[in-house]
Amino acid sequence: MELLEQRIRKDGLVKEGNVLKVDSFLNHQIDIGLLNEIGKEFKRIFAGEKITKILTVEASGIAIAAIVAQYFDVPVVFAKKTLTINLDGSMYTTKIESFTHKRTYDVIVSRKYLGPEDRVLVIDDFLANGCAVTGLIDIIEEAGASLAGVGIIIEKATQDGGKRLRERGVRVESLAIIEDMDPVTGEITFRHQ
Amino acid sequence: MELLEQRIRKDGLVKEGNVLKVDSFLNHQIDIGLLNEIGKEFKRIFAGEKITKILTVEASGIAIAAIVAQYFDVPVVFAKKTLTINLDGSMYTTKIESFTHKRTYDVIVSRKYLGPEDRVLVIDDFLANGCAVTGLIDIIEEAGASLAGVGIIIEKATQDGGKRLRERGVRVESLAIIEDMDPVTGEITFRHQ
Repeated sequence: MELLEQRIRKDGLVKEGNVLKVDSFLNHQIDIGLLNEIGKEFKRIFAGEKITKILTVEASGIAIAAIVAQYFDVPVVFAKKTLTINLDGSMYTTKIESFTHKRTYDVIVSRKYLGPEDRVLVIDDFLANGCAVTGLIDIIEEAGASLAGVGIIIEKATQDGGKRLRERGVRVESLAIIEDMDPVTGEITFRHQ
Repeated sequence: MELLEQRIRKDGLVKEGNVLKVDSFLNHQIDIGLLNEIGKEFKRIFAGEKITKILTVEASGIAIAAIVAQYFDVPVVFAKKTLTINLDGSMYTTKIESFTHKRTYDVIVSRKYLGPEDRVLVIDDFLANGCAVTGLIDIIEEAGASLAGVGIIIEKATQDGGKRLRERGVRVESLAIIEDMDPVTGEITFRHQ
Protein backbone atom coordinates (compact mmCIF):
# COMPACT_ATOMS: atom_id res chain seq x y z
CA MET A 1 0.00 0.00 0.00
CA GLU A 2 1.80 3.02 -1.36
CA LEU A 3 0.36 5.62 1.07
CA LEU A 4 1.41 3.47 4.04
CA GLU A 5 4.92 2.83 2.72
CA GLN A 6 5.41 6.56 2.17
CA ARG A 7 4.28 7.27 5.72
CA ILE A 8 6.59 4.59 7.19
CA ARG A 9 9.54 6.06 5.24
CA LYS A 10 8.64 9.58 6.37
CA ASP A 11 7.78 9.01 10.04
CA GLY A 12 9.00 5.52 10.99
CA LEU A 13 12.17 5.31 13.09
CA VAL A 14 14.50 2.35 12.59
CA LYS A 15 16.18 1.30 15.85
CA GLU A 16 18.81 -1.27 16.75
CA GLY A 17 17.55 -4.83 17.27
CA ASN A 18 15.18 -4.93 14.31
CA VAL A 19 12.81 -2.40 15.88
CA LEU A 20 10.65 -0.03 13.82
CA LYS A 21 8.94 2.72 15.82
CA VAL A 22 5.69 4.02 14.33
CA ASP A 23 4.55 5.74 17.51
CA SER A 24 3.77 9.00 15.75
CA PHE A 25 0.93 7.63 13.61
CA LEU A 26 0.01 4.07 14.64
CA ASN A 27 1.00 2.97 18.14
CA HIS A 28 0.77 5.86 20.55
CA GLN A 29 -0.48 8.82 18.53
CA ILE A 30 -2.93 7.53 15.92
CA ASP A 31 -3.66 9.09 12.52
CA ILE A 32 -7.34 8.21 12.10
CA GLY A 33 -7.40 9.30 8.45
CA LEU A 34 -4.65 6.82 7.61
CA LEU A 35 -6.51 4.09 9.51
CA ASN A 36 -9.59 4.77 7.39
CA GLU A 37 -7.54 4.26 4.22
CA ILE A 38 -6.20 1.03 5.75
CA GLY A 39 -9.77 -0.06 6.51
CA LYS A 40 -10.81 0.52 2.88
CA GLU A 41 -7.80 -1.46 1.65
CA PHE A 42 -8.55 -4.47 3.87
CA LYS A 43 -12.17 -4.37 2.70
CA ARG A 44 -10.97 -4.41 -0.93
CA ILE A 45 -8.58 -7.32 -0.23
CA PHE A 46 -11.08 -9.42 1.76
CA ALA A 47 -14.16 -8.40 -0.27
CA GLY A 48 -14.92 -11.99 -1.29
CA GLU A 49 -14.88 -13.32 2.28
CA LYS A 50 -17.86 -13.70 4.57
CA ILE A 51 -16.71 -12.22 7.89
CA THR A 52 -18.74 -12.07 11.12
CA LYS A 53 -16.17 -10.83 13.65
CA ILE A 54 -12.88 -8.98 13.74
CA LEU A 55 -10.47 -10.26 16.38
CA THR A 56 -7.41 -8.43 17.70
CA VAL A 57 -5.37 -8.21 20.89
CA GLU A 58 -4.93 -5.26 23.21
CA ALA A 59 -3.66 -2.64 23.18
CA SER A 60 -2.26 -1.36 19.90
CA GLY A 61 -4.49 -3.52 17.70
CA ILE A 62 -7.70 -2.05 19.09
CA ALA A 63 -7.85 1.30 17.29
CA ILE A 64 -6.98 -0.37 13.99
CA ALA A 65 -9.57 -3.11 14.41
CA ALA A 66 -12.27 -0.59 15.41
CA ILE A 67 -11.75 1.58 12.34
CA VAL A 68 -11.36 -1.42 9.99
CA ALA A 69 -14.57 -2.99 11.38
CA GLN A 70 -16.61 -0.07 10.05
CA TYR A 71 -15.89 -1.28 6.50
CA PHE A 72 -17.05 -4.82 7.31
CA ASP A 73 -20.01 -3.78 9.50
CA VAL A 74 -19.19 -6.40 12.14
CA PRO A 75 -18.30 -6.25 15.87
CA VAL A 76 -14.73 -6.21 17.13
CA VAL A 77 -13.59 -8.59 19.85
CA PHE A 78 -10.29 -7.84 21.48
CA ALA A 79 -8.36 -10.47 23.43
CA LYS A 80 -7.37 -9.15 26.83
CA LYS A 81 -3.99 -9.49 28.44
CA THR A 82 -4.36 -10.67 31.99
CA LEU A 83 -2.31 -11.57 35.01
CA THR A 84 -5.07 -13.63 36.59
CA ILE A 85 -6.50 -16.42 34.50
CA ASN A 86 -10.10 -17.11 35.40
CA LEU A 87 -10.43 -20.88 35.61
CA ASP A 88 -14.22 -21.16 35.62
CA GLY A 89 -14.29 -22.20 31.97
CA SER A 90 -15.92 -19.00 30.74
CA MET A 91 -12.84 -17.95 28.76
CA TYR A 92 -10.74 -19.17 25.87
CA THR A 93 -7.12 -18.73 26.91
CA THR A 94 -3.70 -18.79 25.30
CA LYS A 95 -0.22 -17.40 25.86
CA ILE A 96 1.39 -14.75 23.67
CA GLU A 97 5.06 -13.83 23.82
CA SER A 98 5.69 -10.17 23.02
CA PHE A 99 8.70 -9.43 20.84
CA THR A 100 8.62 -5.75 21.84
CA HIS A 101 8.25 -6.28 25.56
CA LYS A 102 10.23 -9.53 25.88
CA ARG A 103 7.63 -11.16 28.09
CA THR A 104 4.79 -13.65 27.90
CA TYR A 105 1.17 -12.66 28.49
CA ASP A 106 -1.86 -14.79 29.17
CA VAL A 107 -4.63 -13.58 26.90
CA ILE A 108 -8.33 -14.35 27.19
CA VAL A 109 -11.49 -14.10 25.12
CA SER A 110 -14.90 -14.71 26.66
CA ARG A 111 -16.72 -17.74 25.24
CA LYS A 112 -19.76 -15.51 24.82
CA TYR A 113 -18.19 -13.53 21.98
CA LEU A 114 -16.73 -16.21 19.72
CA GLY A 115 -18.32 -19.48 18.62
CA PRO A 116 -18.65 -22.07 15.82
CA GLU A 117 -20.91 -19.74 13.81
CA ASP A 118 -18.17 -17.13 13.50
CA ARG A 119 -15.87 -16.51 10.54
CA VAL A 120 -13.08 -14.33 11.82
CA LEU A 121 -10.72 -11.76 10.35
CA VAL A 122 -7.67 -11.27 12.57
CA ILE A 123 -6.27 -7.73 12.51
CA ASP A 124 -3.01 -6.54 14.07
CA ASP A 125 -0.49 -3.77 13.66
CA PHE A 126 2.74 -5.80 13.38
CA LEU A 127 3.64 -9.31 12.30
CA ALA A 128 7.18 -10.29 13.32
CA ASN A 129 7.67 -13.69 14.97
CA GLY A 130 3.92 -14.30 14.63
CA CYS A 131 3.27 -15.08 18.30
CA ALA A 132 0.30 -12.75 18.67
CA VAL A 133 -1.42 -13.99 15.50
CA THR A 134 -0.68 -17.63 16.36
CA GLY A 135 -2.23 -17.09 19.79
CA LEU A 136 -5.34 -15.54 18.27
CA ILE A 137 -5.64 -18.46 15.82
CA ASP A 138 -5.40 -20.86 18.81
CA ILE A 139 -8.37 -19.04 20.35
CA ILE A 140 -10.36 -19.20 17.08
CA GLU A 141 -9.70 -22.95 16.89
CA GLU A 142 -10.65 -23.43 20.55
CA ALA A 143 -13.92 -21.62 19.79
CA GLY A 144 -14.63 -23.87 16.80
CA ALA A 145 -14.82 -20.73 14.68
CA SER A 146 -13.22 -20.45 11.24
CA LEU A 147 -10.44 -18.13 10.16
CA ALA A 148 -11.10 -16.00 7.07
CA GLY A 149 -7.63 -14.48 7.09
CA VAL A 150 -5.13 -12.25 8.80
CA GLY A 151 -4.77 -8.54 7.97
CA ILE A 152 -1.50 -6.96 9.09
CA ILE A 153 -0.40 -3.37 8.68
CA ILE A 154 3.37 -3.92 8.85
CA GLU A 155 5.06 -7.30 8.40
CA LYS A 156 8.76 -7.70 9.13
CA ALA A 157 10.04 -10.29 6.66
CA THR A 158 13.30 -10.24 8.64
CA GLN A 159 11.46 -12.52 11.10
CA ASP A 160 9.68 -15.66 9.97
CA GLY A 161 6.19 -15.32 11.48
CA GLY A 162 4.54 -14.54 8.15
CA LYS A 163 6.41 -17.31 6.36
CA ARG A 164 5.37 -19.93 8.92
CA LEU A 165 1.72 -18.84 8.92
CA ARG A 166 1.54 -18.98 5.11
CA GLU A 167 3.17 -22.44 5.16
CA ARG A 168 0.32 -23.53 7.47
CA GLY A 169 -2.11 -22.35 4.77
CA VAL A 170 -3.22 -19.20 6.57
CA ARG A 171 -4.15 -16.30 4.30
CA VAL A 172 -1.93 -13.46 5.52
CA GLU A 173 -2.34 -10.06 3.86
CA SER A 174 0.18 -7.43 4.92
CA LEU A 175 -0.18 -3.87 3.68
CA ALA A 176 3.56 -3.19 3.98
CA ILE A 177 6.26 -5.87 4.10
CA ILE A 178 9.69 -4.83 5.30
CA GLU A 179 12.44 -6.82 3.63
CA ASP A 180 15.27 -5.01 5.35
CA MET A 181 15.94 -1.95 7.47
CA ASP A 182 19.15 -0.26 8.49
CA PRO A 183 19.37 1.40 11.93
CA VAL A 184 22.44 3.42 10.85
CA THR A 185 21.12 5.00 7.64
CA GLY A 186 17.42 4.62 8.55
CA GLU A 187 16.84 3.08 5.12
CA ILE A 188 13.85 0.74 4.74
CA THR A 189 13.44 -1.75 1.88
CA PHE A 190 9.91 -2.95 1.15
CA ARG A 191 8.98 -6.20 -0.57
CA HIS A 192 6.49 -5.86 -3.39
CA GLN A 193 4.35 -8.87 -4.24
CA MET B 1 -28.33 9.49 25.48
CA GLU B 2 -31.45 7.39 25.05
CA LEU B 3 -29.97 4.75 22.69
CA LEU B 4 -27.10 4.15 25.11
CA GLU B 5 -29.35 3.89 28.19
CA GLN B 6 -31.55 1.37 26.36
CA ARG B 7 -28.48 -0.68 25.48
CA ILE B 8 -27.15 -0.58 29.05
CA ARG B 9 -30.54 -1.74 30.36
CA LYS B 10 -30.71 -4.51 27.75
CA ASP B 11 -27.14 -5.85 27.81
CA GLY B 12 -25.43 -4.42 30.93
CA LEU B 13 -24.93 -6.78 33.85
CA VAL B 14 -25.06 -5.38 37.38
CA LYS B 15 -22.68 -7.21 39.72
CA GLU B 16 -21.95 -6.99 43.44
CA GLY B 17 -19.54 -4.26 44.49
CA ASN B 18 -20.92 -1.50 42.30
CA VAL B 19 -19.72 -3.20 39.10
CA LEU B 20 -21.48 -2.81 35.76
CA LYS B 21 -20.30 -5.17 33.03
CA VAL B 22 -20.75 -3.88 29.49
CA ASP B 23 -18.41 -6.45 27.95
CA SER B 24 -20.87 -7.42 25.25
CA PHE B 25 -20.88 -4.05 23.48
CA LEU B 26 -18.18 -1.75 24.90
CA ASN B 27 -15.26 -3.37 26.73
CA HIS B 28 -14.45 -6.71 25.15
CA GLN B 29 -16.81 -7.13 22.22
CA ILE B 30 -17.39 -3.70 20.67
CA ASP B 31 -20.49 -2.56 18.79
CA ILE B 32 -18.97 -0.17 16.25
CA GLY B 33 -22.35 1.16 15.14
CA LEU B 34 -23.13 2.25 18.70
CA LEU B 35 -19.68 3.89 18.98
CA ASN B 36 -20.43 5.89 15.84
CA GLU B 37 -23.63 7.20 17.43
CA ILE B 38 -21.60 8.06 20.54
CA GLY B 39 -19.06 9.89 18.37
CA LYS B 40 -21.81 11.97 16.76
CA GLU B 41 -23.24 12.82 20.18
CA PHE B 42 -19.87 14.01 21.57
CA LYS B 43 -19.37 16.10 18.43
CA ARG B 44 -22.78 17.69 19.01
CA ILE B 45 -22.01 18.38 22.69
CA PHE B 46 -18.49 19.76 22.09
CA ALA B 47 -19.31 21.48 18.78
CA GLY B 48 -18.32 24.91 20.10
CA GLU B 49 -14.89 23.81 21.29
CA LYS B 50 -11.64 23.99 19.36
CA ILE B 51 -10.05 20.58 19.85
CA THR B 52 -6.65 19.47 18.49
CA LYS B 53 -6.17 16.07 20.17
CA ILE B 54 -8.21 13.36 21.79
CA LEU B 55 -6.52 11.73 24.78
CA THR B 56 -7.47 8.41 26.37
CA VAL B 57 -5.79 5.59 28.27
CA GLU B 58 -5.32 1.99 27.20
CA ALA B 59 -6.95 -0.36 26.73
CA SER B 60 -10.72 0.01 26.75
CA GLY B 61 -10.70 3.75 25.92
CA ILE B 62 -8.86 3.23 22.64
CA ALA B 63 -11.66 1.96 20.41
CA ILE B 64 -14.01 4.65 21.67
CA ALA B 65 -11.46 7.44 21.19
CA ALA B 66 -10.60 6.21 17.67
CA ILE B 67 -14.20 6.20 16.49
CA VAL B 68 -15.02 9.51 18.24
CA ALA B 69 -11.92 11.16 16.71
CA GLN B 70 -13.39 10.70 13.24
CA TYR B 71 -16.06 13.28 14.10
CA PHE B 72 -13.46 15.81 15.27
CA ASP B 73 -10.90 15.06 12.55
CA VAL B 74 -7.99 15.06 15.02
CA PRO B 75 -5.40 12.47 16.09
CA VAL B 76 -5.85 10.23 19.11
CA VAL B 77 -3.11 9.88 21.70
CA PHE B 78 -3.44 7.04 24.14
CA ALA B 79 -1.57 6.99 27.44
CA LYS B 80 0.26 3.70 27.89
CA LYS B 81 0.31 1.61 31.03
CA THR B 82 3.84 0.58 31.81
CA LEU B 83 5.83 -1.35 34.35
CA THR B 84 9.11 0.35 33.49
CA ILE B 85 9.17 4.13 33.67
CA ASN B 86 11.66 5.60 31.26
CA LEU B 87 13.50 8.30 33.16
CA ASP B 88 15.19 10.06 30.24
CA GLY B 89 12.65 12.89 30.36
CA SER B 90 11.02 12.00 27.05
CA MET B 91 7.72 11.10 28.71
CA TYR B 92 5.01 12.75 30.77
CA THR B 93 4.18 10.32 33.58
CA THR B 94 1.50 9.87 36.20
CA LYS B 95 -0.06 7.13 38.30
CA ILE B 96 -3.60 5.84 37.82
CA GLU B 97 -5.36 3.59 40.31
CA SER B 98 -7.76 1.19 38.62
CA PHE B 99 -11.08 0.65 40.37
CA THR B 100 -11.77 -2.50 38.32
CA HIS B 101 -8.35 -4.07 38.76
CA LYS B 102 -7.58 -2.79 42.27
CA ARG B 103 -4.04 -1.80 41.39
CA THR B 104 -2.01 1.24 40.47
CA TYR B 105 -0.45 1.70 37.02
CA ASP B 106 2.23 4.07 35.86
CA VAL B 107 1.01 5.66 32.64
CA ILE B 108 3.07 7.59 30.13
CA VAL B 109 2.60 9.89 27.17
CA SER B 110 5.50 10.87 24.95
CA ARG B 111 6.34 14.59 25.05
CA LYS B 112 6.32 14.50 21.25
CA TYR B 113 2.56 14.06 21.05
CA LEU B 114 1.23 16.66 23.50
CA GLY B 115 2.35 20.25 23.96
CA PRO B 116 1.29 23.82 24.85
CA GLU B 117 -0.38 24.26 21.44
CA ASP B 118 -2.85 21.45 22.14
CA ARG B 119 -6.45 21.75 23.29
CA VAL B 120 -7.46 18.31 24.46
CA LEU B 121 -10.68 16.35 24.74
CA VAL B 122 -10.34 13.46 27.19
CA ILE B 123 -12.44 10.42 26.30
CA ASP B 124 -12.99 7.33 28.43
CA ASP B 125 -15.51 4.55 28.86
CA PHE B 126 -16.21 4.82 32.61
CA LEU B 127 -16.00 7.54 35.22
CA ALA B 128 -16.22 6.17 38.77
CA ASN B 129 -13.68 7.44 41.30
CA GLY B 130 -12.17 9.62 38.58
CA CYS B 131 -8.59 8.36 38.92
CA ALA B 132 -8.04 7.73 35.21
CA VAL B 133 -9.40 11.12 34.16
CA THR B 134 -7.49 12.90 36.95
CA GLY B 135 -4.28 11.21 35.79
CA LEU B 136 -4.91 12.27 32.20
CA ILE B 137 -5.54 15.86 33.34
CA ASP B 138 -2.22 15.75 35.25
CA ILE B 139 -0.52 14.81 31.98
CA ILE B 140 -2.29 17.62 30.08
CA GLU B 141 -1.15 20.11 32.74
CA GLU B 142 2.41 18.76 32.68
CA ALA B 143 2.39 19.26 28.89
CA GLY B 144 1.19 22.85 29.25
CA ALA B 145 -1.77 21.93 27.03
CA SER B 146 -5.34 23.03 27.80
CA LEU B 147 -8.32 20.85 28.58
CA ALA B 148 -11.44 21.37 26.46
CA GLY B 149 -13.47 18.84 28.41
CA VAL B 150 -14.03 15.25 29.36
CA GLY B 151 -16.38 12.96 27.44
CA ILE B 152 -17.49 9.85 29.33
CA ILE B 153 -19.75 7.08 28.12
CA ILE B 154 -20.94 5.82 31.51
CA GLU B 155 -20.60 7.76 34.76
CA LYS B 156 -21.36 6.09 38.07
CA ALA B 157 -22.82 8.80 40.32
CA THR B 158 -22.55 6.28 43.16
CA GLN B 159 -18.86 7.24 43.25
CA ASP B 160 -17.74 10.84 43.48
CA GLY B 161 -15.23 11.20 40.64
CA GLY B 162 -17.58 13.23 38.44
CA LYS B 163 -18.66 15.43 41.33
CA ARG B 164 -15.06 16.27 42.31
CA LEU B 165 -14.02 17.00 38.71
CA ARG B 166 -17.00 19.36 38.19
CA GLU B 167 -16.18 21.09 41.50
CA ARG B 168 -12.69 21.73 40.09
CA GLY B 169 -14.36 23.46 37.13
CA VAL B 170 -13.75 20.66 34.64
CA ARG B 171 -16.42 20.29 31.96
CA VAL B 172 -17.51 16.66 32.27
CA GLU B 173 -20.10 15.37 29.81
CA SER B 174 -21.36 11.87 30.47
CA LEU B 175 -23.71 10.20 27.99
CA ALA B 176 -25.27 7.99 30.68
CA ILE B 177 -25.16 8.70 34.41
CA ILE B 178 -26.04 5.85 36.73
CA GLU B 179 -27.70 7.05 39.93
CA ASP B 180 -28.19 3.62 41.36
CA MET B 181 -28.03 -0.02 40.40
CA ASP B 182 -29.20 -3.15 42.16
CA PRO B 183 -27.18 -6.39 41.76
CA VAL B 184 -30.16 -8.46 42.97
CA THR B 185 -32.89 -7.20 40.64
CA GLY B 186 -30.47 -5.89 37.95
CA GLU B 187 -32.38 -2.61 37.97
CA ILE B 188 -30.49 0.50 36.84
CA THR B 189 -31.63 4.07 37.61
CA PHE B 190 -30.28 6.79 35.35
CA ARG B 191 -29.93 10.46 36.26
CA HIS B 192 -31.35 12.88 33.71
CA GLN B 193 -29.96 16.40 33.62
